[in-house]
Amino acid sequence: MCRFLAYLGEPILLEDLVCKPRHSLVRQSLRAVEAKTVTNGDGFGVGWYGERPTPGVYHEVMPAWSDENLLSLCAHVRSGLFFAHVRASTGGGIARQNCHPFQYGRYLFIHNGQIGGYGQLRRVLESQLPDSLYEERHGATDSELLFLLVMAQILQGASPLQAVQQVLHTTEAAMQAKGVEAPLRFAAALADGEQLWAFRYASDDAAPTLYLKPQRGGCAVASEPLGDDTEAWSPMGQRQVLHLDRQGRALLAL
Amino acid sequence: MCRFLAYLGEPILLEDLVCKPRHSLVRQSLRAVEAKTVTNGDGFGVGWYGERPTPGVYHEVMPAWSDENLLSLCAHVRSGLFFAHVRASTGGGIARQNCHPFQYGRYLFIHNGQIGGYGQLRRVLESQLPDSLYEERHGATDSELLFLLVMAQILQGASPLQAVQQVLHTTEAAMQAKGVEAPLRFAAALADGEQLWAFRYASDDAAPTLYLKPQRGGCAVASEPLGDDTEAWSPMGQRQVLHLDRQGRALLAL
Amino acid sequence: MCRFLAYLGEPILLEDLVCKPRHSLVRQSLRAVEAKTVTNGDGFGVGWYGERPTPGVYHEVMPAWSDENLLSLCAHVRSGLFFAHVRASTGGGIARQNCHPFQYGRYLFIHNGQIGGYGQLRRVLESQLPDSLYEERHGATDSELLFLLVMAQILQGASPLQAVQQVLHTTEAAMQAKGVEAPLRFAAALADGEQLWAFRYASDDAAPTLYLKPQRGGCAVASEPLGDDTEAWSPMGQRQVLHLDRQGRALLAL
Amino acid sequence: MCRFLAYLGEPILLEDLVCKPRHSLVRQSLRAVEAKTVTNGDGFGVGWYGERPTPGVYHEVMPAWSDENLLSLCAHVRSGLFFAHVRASTGGGIARQNCHPFQYGRYLFIHNGQIGGYGQLRRVLESQLPDSLYEERHGATDSELLFLLVMAQILQGASPLQAVQQVLHTTEAAMQAKGVEAPLRFAAALADGEQLWAFRYASDDAAPTLYLKPQRGGCAVASEPLGDDTEAWSPMGQRQVLHLDRQGRALLAL
Repeated sequence: MCRFLAYLGEPILLEDLVCKPRHSLVRQSLRAVEAKTVTNGDGFGVGWYGERPTPGVYHEVMPAWSDENLLSLCAHVRSGLFFAHVRASTGGGIARQNCHPFQYGRYLFIHNGQIGGYGQLRRVLESQLPDSLYEERHGATDSELLFLLVMAQILQGASPLQAVQQVLHTTEAAMQAKGVEAPLRFAAALADGEQLWAFRYASDDAAPTLYLKPQRGGCAVASEPLGDDTEAWSPMGQRQVLHLDRQGRALLAL
Repeated sequence: MCRFLAYLGEPILLEDLVCKPRHSLVRQSLRAVEAKTVTNGDGFGVGWYGERPTPGVYHEVMPAWSDENLLSLCAHVRSGLFFAHVRASTGGGIARQNCHPFQYGRYLFIHNGQIGGYGQLRRVLESQLPDSLYEERHGATDSELLFLLVMAQILQGASPLQAVQQVLHTTEAAMQAKGVEAPLRFAAALADGEQLWAFRYASDDAAPTLYLKPQRGGCAVASEPLGDDTEAWSPMGQRQVLHLDRQGRALLAL
Repeated sequence: MCRFLAYLGEPILLEDLVCKPRHSLVRQSLRAVEAKTVTNGDGFGVGWYGERPTPGVYHEVMPAWSDENLLSLCAHVRSGLFFAHVRASTGGGIARQNCHPFQYGRYLFIHNGQIGGYGQLRRVLESQLPDSLYEERHGATDSELLFLLVMAQILQGASPLQAVQQVLHTTEAAMQAKGVEAPLRFAAALADGEQLWAFRYASDDAAPTLYLKPQRGGCAVASEPLGDDTEAWSPMGQRQVLHLDRQGRALLAL
Repeated sequence: MCRFLAYLGEPILLEDLVCKPRHSLVRQSLRAVEAKTVTNGDGFGVGWYGERPTPGVYHEVMPAWSDENLLSLCAHVRSGLFFAHVRASTGGGIARQNCHPFQYGRYLFIHNGQIGGYGQLRRVLESQLPDSLYEERHGATDSELLFLLVMAQILQGASPLQAVQQVLHTTEAAMQAKGVEAPLRFAAALADGEQLWAFRYASDDAAPTLYLKPQRGGCAVASEPLGDDTEAWSPMGQRQVLHLDRQGRALLAL
């Protein structure tokens, strides 16, 4: 289990959410409260949109709490749409290629959760990737695979919401076909540079937590409240999706 | 293109071949002579057999020339069968998972070369992996994939030589089926803890160089001569395989 | 605060103490029990004596729990005298140069604790280093500095016990001269390839814990018991020093 | 010997100088032309000024040529004043603490060269640091030490040019006092967020090269020309200093 945050709103310094809050993501890398794994020290990453359509990304295998580059980067990069993620590996090895956010073109993706029985399912799910995305498989995690499967749907014309729904559906179908009993857990966020979607889902209705907080003309979403203002953070429900853009936000059923 | 060495003979300190010779593998990481890529600084690895049937392995993404751990390890580990490899990436990213030697059970493998048109072929070649080895795919290189394909043959009962011959054959067939014109290049070594095989092959007869030198009741094989004693190193021919064990050595046709 | 272990006895695989026990040092890197800092993920190191008078050392800035090289090394290196250390930085930055064990010639040193008011004292303590050791200052930690000060005494003819006593004395004197009220805390081990000394000391009698356990003709010393056999581990007292060699062990006053 | 570049002018993406030119600094990390050491793969760093008075910095021990974070950072950070540096270690070990640019408050510093006989001189030069800067000594390089000595002068009221002149003078005096015959070599750049100074000096008049090129209302300075437009790059003379600010540039005697 990992921890992540996503933000869409007025441009702010990344540090305002990633480093400074009393219970910031950097702090959660060392000591998460609501996670099954307290320590999230198996690498981390940030991704942000600036003046280009494609985002900047920074991945590192060290723990977030000890990386001075991260502090400096977050103190100097301002963005109106960014992701950050600290990893607690459930498999896939420690490598930058296994660190979130994953990027393809103008899309960014972060994930907390897992595909039950991934070892048995990896082959059949990878076989569903179109050739153009098969080559984009750089690491070995279930998270990168889910992202590429979502991208496959989007490249075929699906909306991000439809794409995620479709991938969750086919993944669960594959799990059932293999007789996997371990659940699919999926707290995730996806962005295209203009819009942000956050998803909370699990096949067993024990989805990893997600909280949202209105902020500076926008909204932050995080695995756990980031500050002492826990009452300002609303939990997302199971099977909910949050859609954010410059016009506002909406909570939908997933 | 990468540089590597393999040794089977009386137990020696790894440093005797990896670090100390005037043109040692560590030196080649900074300045290779016969390689297409002069600098081999995209990670490295060593693997050695000791008292256990399975080998020890050490992989690092830093250049070999600047890693003090490598110097210390090679000064203190003594082995009668070991591999070392310095990498110049032709794709696959910088990650420990992409560093040689690759290990499976008691087997070690190192490779210098490439599958022509790998991007197009990866999918079809990965689909040939049996389930048990599909899960062992940790990185994204053609070298790891070739190793797992060889292991698939071995697990089905093939000898290491048969296994490599079969994999080279099916890989070339797959390349032809896709209309790939870029060549297959394959200088490699494989060991099982008792025996060592070194292979020199290319579909276009421009196989990466390999040299061998009798040494201390055994033999060293390397991409380039390791010392000033270049006349003591015999070049292996194209389509040759060297077999080494405690009883002696033999050069065979591949 | 860090966690460490030291072993002198019949040669064993490092993994028998470093990786395998239920509460092994690798496990303590993620979840220490008796430490002020639960997570010790700011790098680690091992040092071992083999066939040479000087030890092998391996330092890494990643957390010990995620380093596959460490697992492999410890599964293949056998030694009758070795140290291992996982770091929780109290300053000095994340760098291999700041990872324990520190080595000079045939000596190894590991430390858990700190010099109170180190920022104020570093200058005066470094000025006490003789020229030959001044050049050996590679990092910025108080631990490396204490080690070099101890080595300075040893090079002048002091026994290791005398050297440590002298350095603790001059360090406390320097702290008093600067009016430092924060304590000196010093749990440490020193070895020369034949003998091992473990020290437990603090200026305020709140020295970091050390436990010892007789084992295979020798003894293990550790910051915390390594297994479920906690009753087999005897706590060392404040201001005690344990001396171990091939003939036996003795507990002395420090 | 290392390679570096510095830029002051209209804000541009860092990649325009660091990554994109045919002979960019990233390219020079793998294959420098005018340097004594062809490969500059012992870490690197960038520093840039944005909306804050203090700069952002990014240091990495990997070679610049293989770091995807660097490519992404340089593609997304725009600055009107930035430094970049690729390192070929002449001592001091591989660590982020030994990577340039060095930062103190709003100042950045990069250096190519060395203090002759540094091992003998380190002690006496470090003793010249005031207490407040002694604590800022994180690494072990002569470059960081020269920077802190320069900062000591600046904190006492010297202009950057005066400060560098003073430090070069006292360093040469210390070298003479120790009978050092190896030269002092000093190609360097210093910035305070508004102005940039580039220095070319050596005690033996064999100073490392520096070239400048007017560019976008400002100027780039680099160890070697960055593109095929070598004629557009003017070599700086020995004992010259270039001063740049938003008003223009001036070449002065050092």
